[in-house]
Amino acid sequence: MTPANPDDRLVRALAALAPRAAQAPAALRTALADAAARPGRLARARLLLASAGAAGMPDAAAERLACAVEYWHLASLLLDDLPCMDDAEERRGRRCLHRVHGESTAILAALAFINRAYTLAGEVFAPRPAPVRRAALALVETVMGPDGIVGGQAADLAFAAGPRTPAAIGRIAWRKTGTLLWLSLALPALWAEPAPAHQRALRRLGLYWGLAYQAIDDIGDVLSTSVQSGKTAQRDAALTRPNLALALGVPAAHRRVGRLLGQARATIAGLAAADSRLAFLARWHETMFVARAASRRAA
Amino acid sequence: MTPANPDDRLVRALAALAPRAAQAPAALRTALADAAARPGRLARARLLLASAGAAGMPDAAAERLACAVEYWHLASLLLDDLPCMDDAEERRGRRCLHRVHGESTAILAALAFINRAYTLAGEVFAPRPAPVRRAALALVETVMGPDGIVGGQAADLAFAAGPRTPAAIGRIAWRKTGTLLWLSLALPALWAEPAPAHQRALRRLGLYWGLAYQAIDDIGDVLSTSVQSGKTAQRDAALTRPNLALALGVPAAHRRVGRLLGQARATIAGLAAADSRLAFLARWHETMFVARAASRRAA
Repeated sequence: MTPANPDDRLVRALAALAPRAAQAPAALRTALADAAARPGRLARARLLLASAGAAGMPDAAAERLACAVEYWHLASLLLDDLPCMDDAEERRGRRCLHRVHGESTAILAALAFINRAYTLAGEVFAPRPAPVRRAALALVETVMGPDGIVGGQAADLAFAAGPRTPAAIGRIAWRKTGTLLWLSLALPALWAEPAPAHQRALRRLGLYWGLAYQAIDDIGDVLSTSVQSGKTAQRDAALTRPNLALALGVPAAHRRVGRLLGQARATIAGLAAADSRLAFLARWHETMFVARAASRRAA
Repeated sequence: MTPANPDDRLVRALAALAPRAAQAPAALRTALADAAARPGRLARARLLLASAGAAGMPDAAAERLACAVEYWHLASLLLDDLPCMDDAEERRGRRCLHRVHGESTAILAALAFINRAYTLAGEVFAPRPAPVRRAALALVETVMGPDGIVGGQAADLAFAAGPRTPAAIGRIAWRKTGTLLWLSLALPALWAEPAPAHQRALRRLGLYWGLAYQAIDDIGDVLSTSVQSGKTAQRDAALTRPNLALALGVPAAHRRVGRLLGQARATIAGLAAADSRLAFLARWHETMFVARAASRRAA
């Protein structure tokens, strides 16, 4: 699985399972199709598929759950880009959805994807025992709510007014980035009813990965141009947004990434020692993080 | 249950079950508390509680489901009021949430309520058999998605550019207003596994009620002031929004309301003949609709 070359199966599923809007006004229909046709790197969906494989989840269920996680993520991007949030111009190498289709349509498209995501996740968990379904509901609520993405985005927007410490930046990175990686790892695992220690390790891995992922993005924002990243660059400084590379300097941010990746590797080693099916995590870690950090360093 | 005098039990549940945001920035926390403290008329929650009583649903489950429906409704109001949508100034007799707390916070608060609503509904249906849970998921998806509220709001915003016919106005009223009334009726019924004919009748009742409810609102928008309605008045004409009283004139709109209420009464008579526990619908109809239409006519 090479992150730069999206899996056809996932791209097809993302289009096939997207919100149906045959009766909706043309503006919303077009916006939904446009958004579904820009799949991005699919990091979360790929991670979920890999985790689902290790959990023994059937392919059709794994695809639905992978799409759910991507739709939640996509909705958060559509809303984060709005003028009242990050006021972004580009996303995934193209003009932001709200700049093409209008703000109201972008908001409604985000809601349609969120609605679809809850339905897909609910369908996947429907055959599982009640305690598993309740645990999945609680996990999704934590990740999507004020303790997760919603709270992370609120803290992101309030960042300029508070203490701009690395710790505050880390809390935001956990909520905005780590929680969705955790969800991608933990939803398939939950489906298979793992031991509590296994679940806690997955949460730690989501934390280390989320912080590293965001820090690499932060370094990228400071160093790169829009052409390289496919989204509006160097906005963090302009908007006083949390950015570890701005707070620590680029060299120290790189060292921090190195430490986080070491902690992630140690967590993965523990997980793989307990369950050999989790060896995929080490490969995913190398492809997605180490190679990504190195390419940013070279850029 | 008098709609003008909110039930303390519901108001307490709405505050107790609202999204928890202890770790979130103060702006989001305050906005969530503010929104939960303005319960409105609670028409949907009251209707759901009455429907849940007839379905034999335990009180705690009924309260959770009533709050879920109110939170979905509240989220749709918070988003409808945004500058890019209706650009409203007042809601429930006070300044709109986004005017007090900012647009981004209002959007994030709406997402937190939506997330909470899915969780609460999922918890209530967790003990039910898989087919019941799947049916509930499908119902919620229809009501909340492009065929329901999301599509209704998109059609509302696109209304000025299309044919401004009573039929187009009716389709929007069904999606924006009827579907949530249908959800309030049908979710508790689904929980109790009713016959398909019963479910279809509930959908028709949601349609008649939704169209009547919206038409009464339309008449109110044309005739009333902000002080009377607790929200920004006479905006429909200013914004070229769908309004039956503007399309047909107030007297013809009143006649249409009369016909819809007659169709609703006939549907209720059929439902109550098949199941005497549904007699509550006739009382609800009188209190909520006939009295409301009469008070608007007198105003």
